[in-house]
Amino acid sequence: MGSKYPRSLRVCLPRWALVLEATFILIFFFYTSYDTSRKDQKTLVETYRAFQDVTVVAALGMGFLASSLRRYNWSSVAFSLFLLVLGVQWALLLHGFLEDFSTGKVVITLLSIQLATMSAMSVLISLGAILGKANLLQLAVMVPLEVTAFSTMRMVNRRFLNIDDHSNMMHIYMFAAYFGLTVAYCLSRGLSSGTQEKDRTATSPSLFAMLGTLFLWTFWPSFNCALLNDPNERKNAVFNTYYALAVSTVTATSVSAWAHPQGKINMTHIHNAVLAGGVAVGSSCHLITSPWLAMVLGFVAGLISSAGAECLPVCFNQVLGVHDTCGVYYTFGLPSLLGGITYVVLLTLQISWTKNTTTGHQVLYSEALRMAVVFSLVSGFLTGLLLNLKIWKGPHVTKYFDDQAFWKFPHLAVGF
Amino acid sequence: MGSKYPRSLRVCLPRWALVLEATFILIFFFYTSYDTSRKDQKTLVETYRAFQDVTVVAALGMGFLASSLRRYNWSSVAFSLFLLVLGVQWALLLHGFLEDFSTGKVVITLLSIQLATMSAMSVLISLGAILGKANLLQLAVMVPLEVTAFSTMRMVNRRFLNIDDHSNMMHIYMFAAYFGLTVAYCLSRGLSSGTQEKDRTATSPSLFAMLGTLFLWTFWPSFNCALLNDPNERKNAVFNTYYALAVSTVTATSVSAWAHPQGKINMTHIHNAVLAGGVAVGSSCHLITSPWLAMVLGFVAGLISSAGAECLPVCFNQVLGVHDTCGVYYTFGLPSLLGGITYVVLLTLQISWTKNTTTGHQVLYSEALRMAVVFSLVSGFLTGLLLNLKIWKGPHVTKYFDDQAFWKFPHLAVGF
Amino acid sequence: MGSKYPRSLRVCLPRWALVLEATFILIFFFYTSYDTSRKDQKTLVETYRAFQDVTVVAALGMGFLASSLRRYNWSSVAFSLFLLVLGVQWALLLHGFLEDFSTGKVVITLLSIQLATMSAMSVLISLGAILGKANLLQLAVMVPLEVTAFSTMRMVNRRFLNIDDHSNMMHIYMFAAYFGLTVAYCLSRGLSSGTQEKDRTATSPSLFAMLGTLFLWTFWPSFNCALLNDPNERKNAVFNTYYALAVSTVTATSVSAWAHPQGKINMTHIHNAVLAGGVAVGSSCHLITSPWLAMVLGFVAGLISSAGAECLPVCFNQVLGVHDTCGVYYTFGLPSLLGGITYVVLLTLQISWTKNTTTGHQVLYSEALRMAVVFSLVSGFLTGLLLNLKIWKGPHVTKYFDDQAFWKFPHLAVGF
Repeated sequence: MGSKYPRSLRVCLPRWALVLEATFILIFFFYTSYDTSRKDQKTLVETYRAFQDVTVVAALGMGFLASSLRRYNWSSVAFSLFLLVLGVQWALLLHGFLEDFSTGKVVITLLSIQLATMSAMSVLISLGAILGKANLLQLAVMVPLEVTAFSTMRMVNRRFLNIDDHSNMMHIYMFAAYFGLTVAYCLSRGLSSGTQEKDRTATSPSLFAMLGTLFLWTFWPSFNCALLNDPNERKNAVFNTYYALAVSTVTATSVSAWAHPQGKINMTHIHNAVLAGGVAVGSSCHLITSPWLAMVLGFVAGLISSAGAECLPVCFNQVLGVHDTCGVYYTFGLPSLLGGITYVVLLTLQISWTKNTTTGHQVLYSEALRMAVVFSLVSGFLTGLLLNLKIWKGPHVTKYFDDQAFWKFPHLAVGF
Repeated sequence: MGSKYPRSLRVCLPRWALVLEATFILIFFFYTSYDTSRKDQKTLVETYRAFQDVTVVAALGMGFLASSLRRYNWSSVAFSLFLLVLGVQWALLLHGFLEDFSTGKVVITLLSIQLATMSAMSVLISLGAILGKANLLQLAVMVPLEVTAFSTMRMVNRRFLNIDDHSNMMHIYMFAAYFGLTVAYCLSRGLSSGTQEKDRTATSPSLFAMLGTLFLWTFWPSFNCALLNDPNERKNAVFNTYYALAVSTVTATSVSAWAHPQGKINMTHIHNAVLAGGVAVGSSCHLITSPWLAMVLGFVAGLISSAGAECLPVCFNQVLGVHDTCGVYYTFGLPSLLGGITYVVLLTLQISWTKNTTTGHQVLYSEALRMAVVFSLVSGFLTGLLLNLKIWKGPHVTKYFDDQAFWKFPHLAVGF
Repeated sequence: MGSKYPRSLRVCLPRWALVLEATFILIFFFYTSYDTSRKDQKTLVETYRAFQDVTVVAALGMGFLASSLRRYNWSSVAFSLFLLVLGVQWALLLHGFLEDFSTGKVVITLLSIQLATMSAMSVLISLGAILGKANLLQLAVMVPLEVTAFSTMRMVNRRFLNIDDHSNMMHIYMFAAYFGLTVAYCLSRGLSSGTQEKDRTATSPSLFAMLGTLFLWTFWPSFNCALLNDPNERKNAVFNTYYALAVSTVTATSVSAWAHPQGKINMTHIHNAVLAGGVAVGSSCHLITSPWLAMVLGFVAGLISSAGAECLPVCFNQVLGVHDTCGVYYTFGLPSLLGGITYVVLLTLQISWTKNTTTGHQVLYSEALRMAVVFSLVSGFLTGLLLNLKIWKGPHVTKYFDDQAFWKFPHLAVGF
């Protein structure tokens, strides 16, 4: 019964969230100002569209993608929005302080909010791994930690390894996946069978998750090309992302049917594996100059993502003891590894084709790749340890994946 | 049972709607023409985007926002679309006749359809207060009345008080909220407990309402900046609306958790209170030049909206006898009051800062504010009295909030 | 029980889909390249928006429009996406080979992907007629056949009848509707009463279908104007499509209420009939220069579509023995006939007004209209015969409209 739920967040959550928000307002008061440079309206309109597409991806796409759990769909959608807005504010400040604080003011532009939204999406990706096993307070604590780690990593990459903005941001898939999985590892407890029952989907929630998938599918090209400036690179990014997504849709559906003894397709795999192509092609989408390569990437991404969805849960749960609620590992983790390796190979080939003797670029990038993995594992582990503390009143394992622990339900309201 | 439902709309509703539509076609035939001035394609594309964003807000956002009622979600979505299209046609004609009828023809531009869509949204906002307590015929009668009142008020404001288009349109939140509440007051009857049972939400309808909320949340900056021409003002409007929405999301969630004895969040409050920031910042969004002010506005708006959601229903229902189905008062009514007052204060401060001696502007605006309240109350009261007439065959109180009164349901269809 | 389901697609479906996909990749490898001409970024942004709108219409709109079946909503959404991506790839290649293969390479531009998406939508429209009565393998076989037929018809029309791209594409509604119905005729078997029970809607699926309808309603003007180049024609297309949709919404709702003995509205009719205006105005949307004509078209389209929805199912099912799952005939078939005839009449009038003696254009267009009907019936019949073969293991009639035949359901998974 809800009324016996012992660990009330009544005081802690609002206190933490409101104090954080008040701090944000204070910092914004002292250190930020709007961009007042007069650009012509055309540029404004274009930037606004790009910004809005990213917001659609983050709020509508990522929000509904995680809503497939039978008893946890309210939380997944509403918590996503909550974490997104916290993350955007923090990422914006952090980016301003770390990057151009020369004037003593963080200048807010549409581009900087867009960048902040993309950084905050790392939290939403990681959320998929721990969804249902942490309360909103723990998640709200995780937001500044993860955004800080991700922004720091990007700053280090840019300053010391000279990685451009686009490639830097495309590490988000890998970083967020391994961060989330490490936190999930730290938080993991054995699930009872009653809890496993709740960790399933149902008809209507699955359709909401499909809605999220379709939003992501449709607007993913906008996300992958958002930080590219050269028109030709943007065009390539749009084409390649589209083709990779198209092919991974076909592969994911086919493999899912093939893996089942009676040829039945698993809806949960569809939600995630159709997106694998967009993840895999992320880093190299501006470099690939013919569709077949993007299609092959999408094919392989769909393949390993579906295969991962089939085999990994068992291995993860029983061997490693990690419970990955929404399949972050096979949606983002594996395809992003594939994408990173492809990018390094492409750079190497490009160098050998152009007979360029400076091999620095791909060495630096593979350095950055290693850095992303190490950074995510270390920061994820530290965050996980912190979230494991008793003071956050994490939910008991019997209350996992249960909206009733967090939401006032109408049919329970009578008793209060 | 549906089959005992006595007051059939079979004849009245189609007759009223088709006659209204035929009249519209006739007026369009005699008095309208398309804009044939050749503008370059760039402008067309930009205007089309702005127009489409407003349509998304109206059709997808407002349509699904009201869909949280357990037994009334078909009606809320489909009726919204029906009222929207009636309202747009009427608002377009009215605007043409009241504003530029010098040539004897109403010239239809993309901008005028956009303006008409925004005017018609007043009906969708008011709808929230009376949803489930009036039949489609009553609502279809309300459309021309409310749109006329709103357009007349805007014309008076512009002609006599010299208020600009943007500020004028931003009265929509206040006007529509008080109009709807006054109509709800006139229509109010005591609800039986069986009816109250239906005035609740359930899992899936709540997610649909959340979808509407997210559409509104994502596209609200487009709505608030739609009538601004200066690029810098547009940019400010986008920034401020975004920040106000972000902060009110945090506040609304926190306050909702804090108000419940066990820290549980109320989903219905989330649907509405996260939007309070966008309402509060509406009037002044082009004037505010630093984020903190928009954030403070969003904070306060989220606070009073959540507090209102917690306390007002009891007070409204028992003291005033008004039943406000979707919480229009705390979603739009209170935040828009806050926004209006803020705008007057900002204008006053601006004048005292710039040592400008002409204090006319803020006096005129506060006059316009008063006008909006008076206009909405008077026109709402008259409309409410009219809608209370027996000829409209309003639903009996036992049929409140019930889709079965209006829709052919498959599982009931067998008996017919 | 799912476990007794005898005709497993386990081997056939993945084999067909993966072989098809591999063939696509090979053809793309040998015969395609990206457009590398440097256009300025402005054009890219505009084309990208138009392309994205069409993708939203296809993936989100058409995907959810068909999701109203009570037990078949997973399939309708997920199959739509699968067929869409197969169709887009095939249409792109075909268009390249049939149209400009002069350089020996198919050059991929954003415009050509957009065109391919529009061609692939023909499959999604036809899908409505046979949904639930064919398995995914049959549908995946149908994709290349229908896209080939549609592309060939368009090539013939353009080469020999000199029809422009826009009018040519607007035959899609008619072609797809009659193609789908002919295939449904070939596949038709008598439905048992248990099956008919599943061919119904329920509350939540209906709202998802309404979501699809609203997406289509909002983005339809983008679809109808996508292939027009002249800014004034684009503007007209947007205006006329908007007005036709608005009026058909009013008519459809009214007629549906009027047709029921107790004035109750049929949700399924709303889903489809509100869109009739957009279909009817398609061919002539760039020619109509005043709103009333578009409104009259919308009015008549709403009328015949609602009337068709009321009367046709009985006649179709019992007389012709065709079962039209999602009402393709009254959503697309009838209104597109109306639109075609209107276009011919308009051309004739235009010629008689301008005293032009060359009557060729409307003769050619009516020829094209006839061609569309003949092409769709013949190709549909051949496709239907092919799909009727035993080798595809089509579902047994007791498994019609049943997600369980194709999807792994969580609550059944225990037994495996």
